[in-house]
Amino acid sequence: MQKFVVPHKGRITRKDREGMKGHKSFILWFTGLSGSGKSTLSHRVEEKLFEMGIHTYVLDGDNIRMGLNKDLGFTEEDRRESIRRIGEVAKLFVDAGIVVLAAFISPYRRDREFVRSLVEEGDFIEIYVKCSLEVCENRDPKGLYKKARAGIIKNFTGIDDPYEEPLDPEVVVETDKMSIDECVEKVISYLKGRELI
Amino acid sequence: MQKFVVPHKGRITRKDREGMKGHKSFILWFTGLSGSGKSTLSHRVEEKLFEMGIHTYVLDGDNIRMGLNKDLGFTEEDRRESIRRIGEVAKLFVDAGIVVLAAFISPYRRDREFVRSLVEEGDFIEIYVKCSLEVCENRDPKGLYKKARAGIIKNFTGIDDPYEEPLDPEVVVETDKMSIDECVEKVISYLKGRELI
Repeated sequence: MQKFVVPHKGRITRKDREGMKGHKSFILWFTGLSGSGKSTLSHRVEEKLFEMGIHTYVLDGDNIRMGLNKDLGFTEEDRRESIRRIGEVAKLFVDAGIVVLAAFISPYRRDREFVRSLVEEGDFIEIYVKCSLEVCENRDPKGLYKKARAGIIKNFTGIDDPYEEPLDPEVVVETDKMSIDECVEKVISYLKGRELI
Repeated sequence: MQKFVVPHKGRITRKDREGMKGHKSFILWFTGLSGSGKSTLSHRVEEKLFEMGIHTYVLDGDNIRMGLNKDLGFTEEDRRESIRRIGEVAKLFVDAGIVVLAAFISPYRRDREFVRSLVEEGDFIEIYVKCSLEVCENRDPKGLYKKARAGIIKNFTGIDDPYEEPLDPEVVVETDKMSIDECVEKVISYLKGRELI
């Protein structure tokens, strides 16, 4: 009955999977203020990659906040744990050979750097979705800034919570100056330049 | 600048991904005592599926315990949270079009049923990796039973913690009576019978 105990598990590796799929896997991490366009941009980039036959998956508030992280709020500590878990999940997806697009405010540098540290060098691509607070607040797609200004929502990034800009992101897109197509193109060009796609 | 606010996100759906990959996605949930052969079996089944061109990923202690769940121990409460998170991650993988193989003791029925409830009917396939405690303890691949008997490890399933057998699992494999090839074949046959592969 010892036959069930094997010294080395024949694990299918990331390399095997990348070979099967014909493309590399990595994390595109979109960070920026609420309303900056992270989620929209990540989905537009995903569409482009999907058209190229690349297997992608978007992690964002829609599929994380009510699921994996439904026990977490928006304090600094909870945001840290939230980003930690998302980072660990993104790492699993990369290991599974998938291009992960993660769209979260992720306001703290330390938390983003933690995610970067989880994966191999070059696997974490930080995309700063830059947009002035004024424009984000003017867009206010979910009415959250209004609620934050009224004090109904606490710990809102940009209002009563800080946003720490990336110091050296791989890509910067300025959604208050560029069209969405230009932003998408900038990300795709970066990936092509790095020969990741 | 309102162009970044789109009413409907063009999300690539699970159906799109399944179409791209040419196969369905679902969860194979391997439950059973420590030493029953869950991890070994899940990797052997994964190999078979990989050979068939199916995109798979194994979640097990190796990639979960030191990552996503490194803050959790083995109390009933921590096991519940552990399985909850794994279930949520498995759900994301299914949504991403991947066949997930999850190999965890997951001793409580309620926790396994919770994972089942997270996904659509038919997407959760419970595989009871059945093996007598005596045989598991005799195998003791990691020396954990010895430590549990000596009281060095607490909350060890089968020793000082309960294991609740599945009442109506989709597949039962008896690793103390069947060879590993027979067990793998039984799982593969089930999947073929259900036209999932």
